[in-house]
Amino acid sequence: MNATTGARERLVAAAQQMFAAQGVGATSPRQVLDASGVGQGSLYHHFPTKHDLAVAAVGATVDDALAAARRDLDPGDAGTEDPVARVVAYLERPRDALAGCKVGRLTSDQAVMDDDGLHDVVTAYFVRLLDAVAATLREAGLPDAVARDRAHAAVAVVQGGYVLARATGDPDAMSAAVRGFVALLRTPAPTEGAR
Amino acid sequence: MNATTGARERLVAAAQQMFAAQGVGATSPRQVLDASGVGQGSLYHHFPTKHDLAVAAVGATVDDALAAARRDLDPGDAGTEDPVARVVAYLERPRDALAGCKVGRLTSDQAVMDDDGLHDVVTAYFVRLLDAVAATLREAGLPDAVARDRAHAAVAVVQGGYVLARATGDPDAMSAAVRGFVALLRTPAPTEGAR
Repeated sequence: MNATTGARERLVAAAQQMFAAQGVGATSPRQVLDASGVGQGSLYHHFPTKHDLAVAAVGATVDDALAAARRDLDPGDAGTEDPVARVVAYLERPRDALAGCKVGRLTSDQAVMDDDGLHDVVTAYFVRLLDAVAATLREAGLPDAVARDRAHAAVAVVQGGYVLARATGDPDAMSAAVRGFVALLRTPAPTEGAR
Repeated sequence: MNATTGARERLVAAAQQMFAAQGVGATSPRQVLDASGVGQGSLYHHFPTKHDLAVAAVGATVDDALAAARRDLDPGDAGTEDPVARVVAYLERPRDALAGCKVGRLTSDQAVMDDDGLHDVVTAYFVRLLDAVAATLREAGLPDAVARDRAHAAVAVVQGGYVLARATGDPDAMSAAVRGFVALLRTPAPTEGAR
């Protein structure tokens, strides 16, 4: 890693932190520059506009989040072949509920929603996450439409769990939502055994 | 209704609209004043500070949202005594998915989270909503802890459904989450019939 690469990574890491803490719209490139400790020339060399910096930082956050979900859903990493148990592992992964989802919160950030390039990065995250959960549920023998709906419900419970935790100031609100959903998920449907 | 009452109501309605469109933090009392069409004196008479205006407007939004949920859950309004059907009515109520939840989105609004008075209004909404859904599920014979967890999951699916719809730009993402959850909710657990 040369000095220039280090500067780029420090800028991206600082932007990721500030976006998570205060949103994209409220964060200026100047604040990221100050927090990163790199020189001003490096900022404009790597990221000529705020848009460029935001796409890099949101992209890095999305890559991290997707990698975590894929570990939960991977038979090797999860330590079980059981598809439902792997979806439960994704649901029950410990999360900083009061901080909110670093990706999900971006959907309430007008600066993100108004920027097509940024919005596309957020969209791609959820499309890939939903595909990964649905693919896992299909392994459990669910028809595609049922697996897709159930995957949407699973991801929504996590996203909504963050909203409930932040709204009530109680991280257990997210745990309760996950417990309630997992209890239903583990109940075999009378017809599913027959498929 | 006298002229003063009308001005207060117009200010609150304008603030509710602007908060929903662009958030509390990004909305100035001046913008609300211009949108409401009332005189400047009325604004400062009714709402000496932005905090006062925000508490009134967020309070009105919360009252509307809670009244809608209670209609879904009320046996008379829902047209059925069946508790699960009433929770399904709450889940399946048509929503403007791409606009996001007027209350839920406030949890991503730093200006709301940093203002204890406003945060309390948002907290009270979710506490009451969760209580109402849990009370309905207890009527279905669920033990209190199970009913509370399931109520958290139900409200989380709606909140997370909004996040998925906004993230993907597709209102059907919310419908899919609700369909996936309702399918699980309607599956009787093997042990529940025995209770």
